[in-house]
Amino acid sequence: MATDGAPPRRQTGQLKTPKGTRDWVGQDLLLRDHIFQTITNVFKRHGGIPLDTPVFELRDILAEKYGEDSRLIYNLEDQGGELASLRYDLTVPFARWLAMHSNVKQIKRYQIAKVYRRDQPAIARGRLREFYQCDFDIAGVYDPMIADAEILRVIVEVFRALQLKIRIKVNHRRILDGLFAVCGVSPDKLRPVSSAVDKLDKAPWATVRSELVEEKGISEETADRIGEYVGRNGGMRDMLKVLTADEGLCANSDVQAGLGDMRLLASYLEAMGIPDVVSFDLALARGLDYYSGLIYEVIPNDANVPAQVGSIAAGGRYDNLVGMYGKSTIPCVGLSFGVDRIFTILDSRRTKGNSELTREIDVYVMAVGGKEFDGLLAERMAVATQLWDAGIRAEFAAKVKPKLLQQFNAAGETPLAVILGQDELAAGQVRLKDARVTDRDAGQKDRGRLIARQDLIEEVKRLLSVTSPA
Amino acid sequence: MATDGAPPRRQTGQLKTPKGTRDWVGQDLLLRDHIFQTITNVFKRHGGIPLDTPVFELRDILAEKYGEDSRLIYNLEDQGGELASLRYDLTVPFARWLAMHSNVKQIKRYQIAKVYRRDQPAIARGRLREFYQCDFDIAGVYDPMIADAEILRVIVEVFRALQLKIRIKVNHRRILDGLFAVCGVSPDKLRPVSSAVDKLDKAPWATVRSELVEEKGISEETADRIGEYVGRNGGMRDMLKVLTADEGLCANSDVQAGLGDMRLLASYLEAMGIPDVVSFDLALARGLDYYSGLIYEVIPNDANVPAQVGSIAAGGRYDNLVGMYGKSTIPCVGLSFGVDRIFTILDSRRTKGNSELTREIDVYVMAVGGKEFDGLLAERMAVATQLWDAGIRAEFAAKVKPKLLQQFNAAGETPLAVILGQDELAAGQVRLKDARVTDRDAGQKDRGRLIARQDLIEEVKRLLSVTSPA
Repeated sequence: MATDGAPPRRQTGQLKTPKGTRDWVGQDLLLRDHIFQTITNVFKRHGGIPLDTPVFELRDILAEKYGEDSRLIYNLEDQGGELASLRYDLTVPFARWLAMHSNVKQIKRYQIAKVYRRDQPAIARGRLREFYQCDFDIAGVYDPMIADAEILRVIVEVFRALQLKIRIKVNHRRILDGLFAVCGVSPDKLRPVSSAVDKLDKAPWATVRSELVEEKGISEETADRIGEYVGRNGGMRDMLKVLTADEGLCANSDVQAGLGDMRLLASYLEAMGIPDVVSFDLALARGLDYYSGLIYEVIPNDANVPAQVGSIAAGGRYDNLVGMYGKSTIPCVGLSFGVDRIFTILDSRRTKGNSELTREIDVYVMAVGGKEFDGLLAERMAVATQLWDAGIRAEFAAKVKPKLLQQFNAAGETPLAVILGQDELAAGQVRLKDARVTDRDAGQKDRGRLIARQDLIEEVKRLLSVTSPA
Repeated sequence: MATDGAPPRRQTGQLKTPKGTRDWVGQDLLLRDHIFQTITNVFKRHGGIPLDTPVFELRDILAEKYGEDSRLIYNLEDQGGELASLRYDLTVPFARWLAMHSNVKQIKRYQIAKVYRRDQPAIARGRLREFYQCDFDIAGVYDPMIADAEILRVIVEVFRALQLKIRIKVNHRRILDGLFAVCGVSPDKLRPVSSAVDKLDKAPWATVRSELVEEKGISEETADRIGEYVGRNGGMRDMLKVLTADEGLCANSDVQAGLGDMRLLASYLEAMGIPDVVSFDLALARGLDYYSGLIYEVIPNDANVPAQVGSIAAGGRYDNLVGMYGKSTIPCVGLSFGVDRIFTILDSRRTKGNSELTREIDVYVMAVGGKEFDGLLAERMAVATQLWDAGIRAEFAAKVKPKLLQQFNAAGETPLAVILGQDELAAGQVRLKDARVTDRDAGQKDRGRLIARQDLIEEVKRLLSVTSPA
């Protein structure tokens, strides 16, 4: 609302970022970059190739991929031209890229980028409307479950590197579909039932049961049979034993095929040394439409992390998604890290410093002088320039005549200081002070050692190469 | 359009990225990352702190910042809630952040992120609707023109590091405004006239003159006086001499103030060792509304780069922008690199390899055997796991029984191969082959050296540390 008498062009709208979004700056950003770098290193260790796609896609590309969650997609306004929407995840853009590049028969690709969901934000828990995903996907025809096992191995390596204890819950879409069918669910209701079961990590069974019966039109008997199954979870080998003994269940061909996959997976996880972190959980459903085989979700396994954080990585196999774009399909299995949630957990462990906005500079260039001191600005600029030319991080006070105390304060934690004086400069000399060397008696009066100006770069490089100066 | 008889859920929409956007993959992405890393290093050398902002802002935040170019802003659909638009540049989000953090009195911030403009794309020339900007801005009260000179110094350092010859055109908004006033332009027409003059890098004077006279309602006499001035450019010192001698021009207080700034800038550029790359060009106007002092544009100065590429970096001083958000203002000067255009130039210099999708792996784990060979999958997995645990980049064929030739082909350019055989494994041994060592007589028959399995990691690390093996 404009107010009469307000200064011209001054705005009265709210001064904030849009709902569910945030700025990242300084130390926070450096921690986030550390997470990205750690994850990228693991992706590369497994032969990953980077991909970057536009932040928005043609709206058709996103259609019919996300089931009930499609309502959370952000659309761009129709400004004449194409209809487009912000990407909801990185999987669909990768599938679209694969469909456009049918010459690519096998690839491990990774992508680290922001995705967008018009969900109810909960910033303290790391749930935002704009958030980063780090995805790693293996596309191509291979022998069954080998790529799937490698994906789970990637998960373990990433969280080991981040020093975060985890548990991976796995399940299989064909087992779930077969199980629902055995319980009496008709084929057209498989996805809606799956969506309801997917809510079991946030809601108790009673709530899910009433959704099944009242909203999805499932009979009470069928719902109770489902309830019995989805309560089961345990180690891979134990669960395989129990389910294989269930003759009614195993008569279903989907269940048979799924259990075959899970047996292979169990042996591959053992070969890769990671059977213990994986549990087989029949309640895991994953909401998205496109999964066709193994599905998984990673949750923190750490008493210090509140359970409400939810999953910190998830994914699954989607063999038919690429085929939806009208060309031949290519089987894929993939994984997505929820970086903002991982950030929230790691951030809570960090000891916070005084300032989140600390710059990192190696050398501060200052000047001192008596009554006729003119500030030596051109000389400070010339010395900083010499340092920059040598690739050294340097600053000086952006004032013509800075006071001595101002300069010392601005130098802050900078390890080295070059101190210029008129007489020394005339003699071809500068003073170099190592602020990391504490001299109790000297303090701020310590103006450093006199060295020849021509030796400055060499001497600065020598001092910076010493981590703990004598 | 749905077609009867088409397979279910198969889509018939166009399979492409939205107009003016593109995917980035493999070698292209690595070149782009090299550009980002080079620029980031220079930003950090000057004390830069990273900032990341959301890809969309509240629509009000972007309003009245971009003059005639506002029509190029992408809006998000009104889906109930806040009205938002994709960011058009990184300057306005930074100004919004400064306005929200009035405790920050001085900062050098950098941001590397995508921005969005609904412009006519020209992909071959590197002009896209989604493109990266790399911004560096210095905010705070300092003595005049010191920060401005440092920004120009940052430009020179970045392009030196990228080995790209450039010329920086500079001008001053107050000189331009004063000059237009002296020529007879009324205050309400300063910005429209400036917008028209800004087109001089793409259009001849005759075109701009007719826009001034026919569209902007400027008299022919005034237009001709403007035309005389905007044809002038040259070295800083030469131009200062010529303009200072123009008494009619210097009677204007804006011109006086601008020339004072330019005199300071000339001396600071000399102290920083970069006077020669800068030319003072009265035709440079910059379209954006928010500039208030020095403005500049960087163009390639290289016979091999076509002139149509346009500016590859640009920026200026904007002292009043932050104040538009209703709180106290903070003076800023900043700079934006057009990374996609820089990419286009550097990419044309690159010699292209056979594949843009090369993965980088250190060790390929394979297996060989006779008639009863079962593929040794679990063993290959276990050895790869051992390598991954040691942080070594490793792969194996995702097949139960891979053929020998398949494995050698898949290994490709991988420097090392671990070759497993049933008998050797039983004896606690594996074969290790360094593919970089060419043995003409052996070729593919060379199965490497037998080593104890327990020495594998140590031996692999030793070989990988040797850049040119004997």
